Amino acid sequence: MKIPSKHIENVVEQLSSLPGIGKRTALRLALNLLNRSKEEVSTFAHSFLEMKQYVQKCSGCGNVSDTPVCSICSNPSRDHSTVCVVEDIRDILAIEATESYKGVYHVLGAIISPMDGIGPNDLNIDPLIEKAASGNVNEIIFALSATMEGDTTNYYLFKKINSFPVQITSLSRGVAIGSELQYADELTLGRSILNRQPFKIQG
Amino acid sequence: MKIPSKHIENVVEQLSSLPGIGKRTALRLALNLLNRSKEEVSTFAHSFLEMKQYVQKCSGCGNVSDTPVCSICSNPSRDHSTVCVVEDIRDILAIEATESYKGVYHVLGAIISPMDGIGPNDLNIDPLIEKAASGNVNEIIFALSATMEGDTTNYYLFKKINSFPVQITSLSRGVAIGSELQYADELTLGRSILNRQPFKIQG
Repeated sequence: MKIPSKHIENVVEQLSSLPGIGKRTALRLALNLLNRSKEEVSTFAHSFLEMKQYVQKCSGCGNVSDTPVCSICSNPSRDHSTVCVVEDIRDILAIEATESYKGVYHVLGAIISPMDGIGPNDLNIDPLIEKAASGNVNEIIFALSATMEGDTTNYYLFKKINSFPVQITSLSRGVAIGSELQYADELTLGRSILNRQPFKIQG
Repeated sequence: MKIPSKHIENVVEQLSSLPGIGKRTALRLALNLLNRSKEEVSTFAHSFLEMKQYVQKCSGCGNVSDTPVCSICSNPSRDHSTVCVVEDIRDILAIEATESYKGVYHVLGAIISPMDGIGPNDLNIDPLIEKAASGNVNEIIFALSATMEGDTTNYYLFKKINSFPVQITSLSRGVAIGSELQYADELTLGRSILNRQPFKIQG
């Protein structure tokens, strides 16, 4: 594909550097932008510059935030003695959407993935150890993806904070609510039989 | 989905204004950009501004170009008496990739689509009529998509230029090369029987 404009080609190259965007899609997006007014393109481009300039890391949890302390960490009605460990902001959005959690978060920024060259040093771990050692935290919840990488990270974190007087829990694994048993995968079904729970009438 | 940063939300809004990009994908892309260096984000953002500032329309064919006249129109070895009418630059890239065409192009910029509110006045038609009337063009090829909108546009253009002494042709329609007959759609197969051609040994 030989694009007859260096400037369009630059945009295609930049857009296709994003995950999941190929050259063909990038060209479609570039032409869409080219058909917009100068003001619209300017607004589009400046949104990225402003995001990079103003978004910072919350000093409490490491989450992205417009303020030095994010709205969850600065909320006095949240339970600051319960810390939920997640990979990134998208997990926080997912958990917040459930309205089932009133504690605070700790954002690792990544999970250990040797295949992608991500080791423990690339994770935001030290502040978590400080929290565990502080005596102000009662429970740390591991809420990472149920993958090999997530399990590896859980194991690493457990080794690091196990010696402190803090309860360590993880999300329950099992058959998803609403799913038919016959379609559950073997691993999940097997685990959910081994980890069976006392029957409770759900409120 | 309540994003706890106005700046990230702006980027998500801008990215999800692009065709085929939803809010969830936009957030993934925004976080990917946020993890890049300031320089990389600056290069990313400025590519759009430069594209909008420097890309112009070729005065010959209406295609996007970095120069007042595009590289195809300014190429003396192309056949300027044959004009291929296309919707946009992507069609030119597709036809150029075949290396089967040595004429020049005329870019409409859009095709008539009442559903999308696009009428004949939104198309780059007047310069095509001038070309047809000039006496310098022998053949005009309609190379629009084989859709209702493409057919409507073909019909409209035909009415406009039919009175001039110029041959009007359109791309042949039929069973795609390499496709199995049993999987060809009825409309295409029906048309390819009606428009059957003298058998030729292809060179």
